Amino acid sequence: MKKAAVILLSGGLDSATTFGLARAQGFACYALSVAYGQRHCAELDAAARIAHALGAVEHRTMRVDLANIGGSALTDPSIAVPESAGVGIPVTYVPARNTLMLALALGWAEVLGAGDIFIGVNAVDFSGYPDCRAEFINAFEKLAAVATRAGVEGHPLCIHTPLIAWTKAQIIRAGTELGIDFGATVSCYQADELGRACGRCDSCRIRRSGFEALGLSDPTRYRPL
Amino acid sequence: MKKAAVILLSGGLDSATTFGLARAQGFACYALSVAYGQRHCAELDAAARIAHALGAVEHRTMRVDLANIGGSALTDPSIAVPESAGVGIPVTYVPARNTLMLALALGWAEVLGAGDIFIGVNAVDFSGYPDCRAEFINAFEKLAAVATRAGVEGHPLCIHTPLIAWTKAQIIRAGTELGIDFGATVSCYQADELGRACGRCDSCRIRRSGFEALGLSDPTRYRPL
Repeated sequence: MKKAAVILLSGGLDSATTFGLARAQGFACYALSVAYGQRHCAELDAAARIAHALGAVEHRTMRVDLANIGGSALTDPSIAVPESAGVGIPVTYVPARNTLMLALALGWAEVLGAGDIFIGVNAVDFSGYPDCRAEFINAFEKLAAVATRAGVEGHPLCIHTPLIAWTKAQIIRAGTELGIDFGATVSCYQADELGRACGRCDSCRIRRSGFEALGLSDPTRYRPL
Repeated sequence: MKKAAVILLSGGLDSATTFGLARAQGFACYALSVAYGQRHCAELDAAARIAHALGAVEHRTMRVDLANIGGSALTDPSIAVPESAGVGIPVTYVPARNTLMLALALGWAEVLGAGDIFIGVNAVDFSGYPDCRAEFINAFEKLAAVATRAGVEGHPLCIHTPLIAWTKAQIIRAGTELGIDFGATVSCYQADELGRACGRCDSCRIRRSGFEALGLSDPTRYRPL
């Protein structure tokens, strides 16, 4: 029987590739998406399509209202999404987002009896978020070892971050080899309701430069300017 | 100006006392309750009353659907709440609950610019949950130091657990001295919609023995058997 793993699936390019890598490693993949109050639901629609296309055993979307907390351009409509890179941690950082997503994945993994979680964080072509770094993931793994029934019983959880040290171009190459349909993924911070990208935000710029570096045609659907 | 702290407030006896202790230490208290799919909302109603009575600067209730994950008698109606103590981690344990609650508190603390979180976990007269122990709290504090903007900028977060080494009787004595109205708190795992306790679950038994140990009259409202 295949080992079960929980895969955090946002609907973007990175998490879709992560899902493909987990599947290629032989895991039975349980996809978890989190509706945390993001500006648009195109990303969550994309997650559902990707989970289906890649053969998730099950796909769940959990709701948690981070918009209630505010403090980020991704959840608070009164904060504009910047269209050029700044310095330091940008306003698109969502406080405690990855902590929360991993906590939800941890809970589901525990109920499933799964000892593995996959998350597509990346510390190279990324936006400078503190909770995308290896030291954050390592700290969460240590937390999980003391937080759960499985941990206490001597079965610590492994958090896989296969993309963490890859460039965006490397991620796109791996995903392409895995047969991921990147046209179905949505990376833009402010996609429209059809999932069409703005082409100008941090996330769009990093994604486009990845396709350009590989000389691949970019399947992203951009909205008319 | 008072320092701000986020206080996790469930509506039970422990978190009410924790709130009172934070207030006595001079913090401006921001109360956070989490609707995680518990069997009844009497606890959340109690939290709102306590937050008001104790002078919370603000009280927020965040929703996150742990019932969607299942695996606990507290969120899954198909699992019965046991009425006698068993061995090991009981079925009332909610997978990843405290990890998730602290993650939400972390996010709100970050937006508020607060460096302190209070949580009323207790490792003495408790139900054997892994995420009520000091090693769990220590691991979360280490996680917070690398998870957030404040942590990265050199302002680590402090998680206060004033009750962690107290007996239930000590908690009740401290709360009584702080003027907490324990009649307004709800501890029962299966209280009715009026907040009346069953008197038989783990949580009820531990609470009652605390009042008995002190020779105090028990203000808990029990439902007719």
